[in-house]
Parts: sequence; structure tokens; C-alpha cells
Amino acid sequence: MNKDTSILKSRIKKIRASLLTQKIDALIETIPSNVSYLSGFCGNDSWLLITADTAVLITDSRYTLQAKHQCPCCRIYERKGRMTETISEILKKLTTVKIAAVEDKIELATFKILKAKLPVKLKPVKNIAESVRAIKDESEIETIKKAAAIAEKSLEKILQKIRVDMSEVEIAAMLDFEMKKVGAVPAFETNVSFSTNSAMAHHQPSLQKLKKVDTILIDYGAKLNGYCSDITRCFAVGKVNKFYAKVYKAVLDAQTAAINMLKAGVKAVDVDSTAKEIITKANLKPYGHGLGHGLGIDIHEAPAVSVFSTSNLQTGNVITVEPGVYLDNKFGIRIEDDVFVTENGCEILTTLLTTDEVPLLKI
Amino acid sequence: MNKDTSILKSRIKKIRASLLTQKIDALIETIPSNVSYLSGFCGNDSWLLITADTAVLITDSRYTLQAKHQCPCCRIYERKGRMTETISEILKKLTTVKIAAVEDKIELATFKILKAKLPVKLKPVKNIAESVRAIKDESEIETIKKAAAIAEKSLEKILQKIRVDMSEVEIAAMLDFEMKKVGAVPAFETNVSFSTNSAMAHHQPSLQKLKKVDTILIDYGAKLNGYCSDITRCFAVGKVNKFYAKVYKAVLDAQTAAINMLKAGVKAVDVDSTAKEIITKANLKPYGHGLGHGLGIDIHEAPAVSVFSTSNLQTGNVITVEPGVYLDNKFGIRIEDDVFVTENGCEILTTLLTTDEVPLLKI
Repeated sequence: MNKDTSILKSRIKKIRASLLTQKIDALIETIPSNVSYLSGFCGNDSWLLITADTAVLITDSRYTLQAKHQCPCCRIYERKGRMTETISEILKKLTTVKIAAVEDKIELATFKILKAKLPVKLKPVKNIAESVRAIKDESEIETIKKAAAIAEKSLEKILQKIRVDMSEVEIAAMLDFEMKKVGAVPAFETNVSFSTNSAMAHHQPSLQKLKKVDTILIDYGAKLNGYCSDITRCFAVGKVNKFYAKVYKAVLDAQTAAINMLKAGVKAVDVDSTAKEIITKANLKPYGHGLGHGLGIDIHEAPAVSVFSTSNLQTGNVITVEPGVYLDNKFGIRIEDDVFVTENGCEILTTLLTTDEVPLLKI
Repeated sequence: MNKDTSILKSRIKKIRASLLTQKIDALIETIPSNVSYLSGFCGNDSWLLITADTAVLITDSRYTLQAKHQCPCCRIYERKGRMTETISEILKKLTTVKIAAVEDKIELATFKILKAKLPVKLKPVKNIAESVRAIKDESEIETIKKAAAIAEKSLEKILQKIRVDMSEVEIAAMLDFEMKKVGAVPAFETNVSFSTNSAMAHHQPSLQKLKKVDTILIDYGAKLNGYCSDITRCFAVGKVNKFYAKVYKAVLDAQTAAINMLKAGVKAVDVDSTAKEIITKANLKPYGHGLGHGLGIDIHEAPAVSVFSTSNLQTGNVITVEPGVYLDNKFGIRIEDDVFVTENGCEILTTLLTTDEVPLLKI
């Protein structure tokens, strides 16, 4: 997480500007990834209160010392009672606060307690912090690049070690180990799928063993200093089946076309439909998931790039581009890269094994 | 996740009985761990609708095949549109449903959309599934025992491999690798803390290196077939400092006293205060976190065992018992085991290194 005081200050400043526009006196930020983004804090179970002239991180004794290290722009308040009671006590003393906002991702039960207890009016708002987070600054792009580089180097290393009879979980464990050795963590549960398992887009690694002639899909990412990368690569093992190569080409063509049209101002939904059309033209059924998603502190964050997207891409968005084709009881192919949207195009942050051919593992 | 049809049926039956008592016609279950528990499904982004005579898992194309494999007691519905629209369409056809419940852990924004769109009355309820989950059945206890055994064997293995100059992340990576090799995953991010880092109860592993004379706190767990174990052990490296041994003894005494008083009917809050009293009597400041928490599909689930607990323990609860002492800029000690509450006492599910002495690592 970024501890640069000037960056944290500028983030809080953006929230204050947003509050001012909406005529709200305070934000009670309860979503952990937003709390991290705005304060620098890396722990859990802590809330952030932002008003026009103060920022208070409310935590408990497990995290007080850590919060003091990580949050140069916040006052640290160690709560003894329940979070909702503590925030109520603090607000009673801040007499200038009449209306406070909470993100509408808050749990309904917590919202109801706050509404009943707080001495101020409570207003749910949509994505007040996440809309700021969707536009990455230079330091965030650099961190995601580093996270992607660790992920790619780790995969390169373990590709050398894959052998017949290894299980999906063993390969996933090796990959995670490489990322962890250098101080990153898996951004989510690493997915290694052999053969027909890859037809399930979110298969969980099993004890199934790799055959001499087989296929592998690996969907994984490294999280470094609080920021995620997210990559999917597919491999033929032993030899390349012609039909597998045909599907691979269709997915890669769809991804290339999608990436080529990326730039600020483009409708996210159009990028999704372009990729789907190319797959359909190859007489294949396109993926049912979204083409991609924003990437940052969370593995899924704004903006979504799917059939449901209503927004245009903006300079500073970091998104995945991950079309796929899934054939029940045969195989699935998905190719996923991370890109940074710019005014006139995009920069691809992941570069591993970007060939036109199916990558072939000879083991 | 348990795929035994009779067990899944009995869980759904308990939900139906609860709905009947509360005069509610259907439950719209949106919380992933509850969906897993009631359906057997291991994926994400899926909801479960339970009425008096049907159970429908609503998922998307990424998960349809997986859901068919994993959910013997549910009809699988592959949604094309948004989840909230799909559930609305399904409920329009189920004319017997007039009042539907949702767990009050639902996101406020989602609740508001449902409330506006659904053709039925919507009622938030508290912990309808989690209160069933808090009472574990035999198969769940067996799975948690196996998860604990994997965690313990993995730690035993890596204790042999710890060397001077290894980093916290390297040891965490080795431990995770051992658990993954046998098909488990880390139940949460493995915490390895040397020396003063252990004074922060939730330290994240760093690149700090182990010294010849040092201390290590390891807090970790294995998740197997959807169920978590959770263990903390502390070690002296090279030699045992007298003050460290004194604090260790106080924490162990507190844990032993707490475990000795566990049985169905005991107030959870009393167990917490007993442990704290023993630490206070040793002239040390007790932990600020809870003494323990329920353990199962989630690493934290009902019942809580803390100063805030209002409930009594019940036969079938599985909880952690984890008192600690944290001394800023010195060290922290926490000892954590998992126990199964019975009518007349409890059964300890974790057994590694349960000596009265500080475990000493000679490296």
C-alpha cells in the first residue's frame, strides 16, 4: 500500500471535493479496500471517517501499532466498544457534521444500526471512493506492472518444472510459492485446470494428474504492496491438437481486436461485443462472463467491461481483457492480459508468451 | 464441500422449518458461504432460492457445469441477465410466494434494488443460515479435523527446514506449499512474525530475516473441502528468554483455563473474561481482540467468543481459543487451538506441540 503522504493527501482531497459537491459533511468509509486506498492502512475491521478538516482511522488494539506506521495522514482512534457505538461517539463531538455518507455496499444490518444510532443524517452513496480508485495514478500503474512482472517470472520458472503425473494442486502450489518467495501473494486462488476441467471457467485445482498429451489453463495473479495483477495462459502439452489451435486462434483474435479498440471514451459494452462477434464468426459460442474488469486493490473493481456496462472507458483505467471459449467435456480456452487505458490507446502491462501460436509444453 | 444428498437435504429442511416459524414463504440466500453450505456449490456470484417445495441455484455460464456436478438437491438456473432481474422473473412464476426473506448481511444497494423490483414482500432476517451452520454435524467435524491435521503436519515439516536468514515470507510460502501439495489451501493469509513484528496481532509477512536468537509467531490454517482450521504457535529460536517464557506461561494458563470451562450452556462472554483475568493476574495486559470465534466454511463465523458475545455455547459449536499478550516493540504471544463444544465439555481438534514449555527451535 502506498504510504506517500502527498498521494494519500490528494486522494482524501478528491473525496472532500466530492462530498462538497453532494452537500455532505462527512464520509464514513466502511469498505476495507477503500479504507486502504484512502489511508494507507493494510489491516481489516477498521473504518475511516473523513470530514472537511479531519481524517480518523478507527481501529482496535490488534491494529493500532500497524495503523500508526501505515497512515501518515490520519488520526488513529483505538476503539474499545463496538464500531457503530464508537463512530457515534466521535460524531457527537464533531458538531459541524449534520449529514454523513456511507457507501451503499455497506451491509444492510450495519446500515440500519448506524441509521438508528448516529446523531447525524445518514445518506447512502454509490462508489464515492471506487470512482476515484478507477483512475490510477503513476505509482499505482508502476505497482501493478511490478505485480505483473512477478507473476510472469514465476510462471516462467515453474513451466520448466512441470512434469507428467503432477497434479493441478501441485502446479498451483509451485506457482504460488514462486510469487511468495519474492514478497507477493496470490491475488486470488490460483486456477490450474487440465483437459476437460478447463471447460469450467472457475475450476478449483484438483488432484487430477497431468498426462503426456494434455492441455493446461492457468489463471492466476500476484498481489504486491496491495495491488493485483491477473493473467490467464493456455498451453498444449506434448502436441497441439488442430481443433484446440483453431479455438485458441479465435480467442486470441477476439482479444487482439478488443485491445486494439481500447482508448478513453470508448464504450465498455462495445469492446465486449466486438470480442464476442469475432468468436461467433469463427462458429464458436463466446464466453458468458464479462470481457474484463477493473483491477487494482481489488481483483474485481470499477470499471466493469461486460454486456451490463453503462460507462465509457477513461484514461487511467486498468482493466483485464479476457475473452474465452468453453466447450463442455472438451476444454476451455481463455487468454487474459492487463492493460492501462490511455487517451489515444492503451498500454499492455503483461507480456508473457504473446505469440500467435498455441504455447507448447514439451515435458 | 459436502455433496452427500441426505446431509444437504437435512440442511434445506432446517431452513424450511425456520421459514415456516417466521411465516416467510421463501429465502433468497445471497451470502456465498451460506449458498455453499445449503447447496454444495463451491463457486461465486450465485444465489440460492429456497421455498417450501423447491431449491433453485441461480448461477451464470462460468459455473453451470460445476453447479450440476456439485448440487444434487437443486435445480440449476443459468441466468443471462442481471441477478436481481432473474430472481424477479423466477418469483413471478412462483405464485405461492408472497413474502421472501434475505439475510441482513446483504449489501444495502442490492437490497434496495430487490425491494424495488421483486413481485413479493421482502423481509431482512438475521443469520437464518448461519445459526444452522453454527451447529456442526459429524461430517463437518471430520472435515475440520482433517484440515487441522494437514495444517499440523505441514508445520511439522517446515519447522525442520527453518534456517537463519530466512525471511517471514519465505517461511509462510513453505508452509502454504506443504498444505497445497496435499490438496488444501491456506484458510487465510499465513502470518509469520519475527521478534517485534509479533507485537502486531495481524502482521503481514515481510522480507525481514530470522536471527540466530529470535522469536517466531505463526498464525495459519488449512482449508480442506471448504472447511477451515486455524492455529497459532509461538517459538523461541536459539534460546529461551526468561521474560518470553513468563508471558508464554501466562497465555497458556489463560488458554487452558478457558478450554477447561467449555461446555454447552456456558456463556461465551464468561470464557473470554476468565482468560483475561488470568493474564491480568500475571501483571500483563490481556489481548484486545476476542478470545475466539466460530470456525467452519468461513474462518470467522458464529458464535463469537468475545466481550461482545451475548449467546451461550451450544453442543456442536466449533470455536478457536486464542488468548494473547502483545508488548509494543518487544514481542507478542498468542496460542490458538480449535475445539468442538460438547454437552459436558469439549474435544480439542488441534494437538501439535501442546507442551507446558516454550517450543524451542534449534536452527
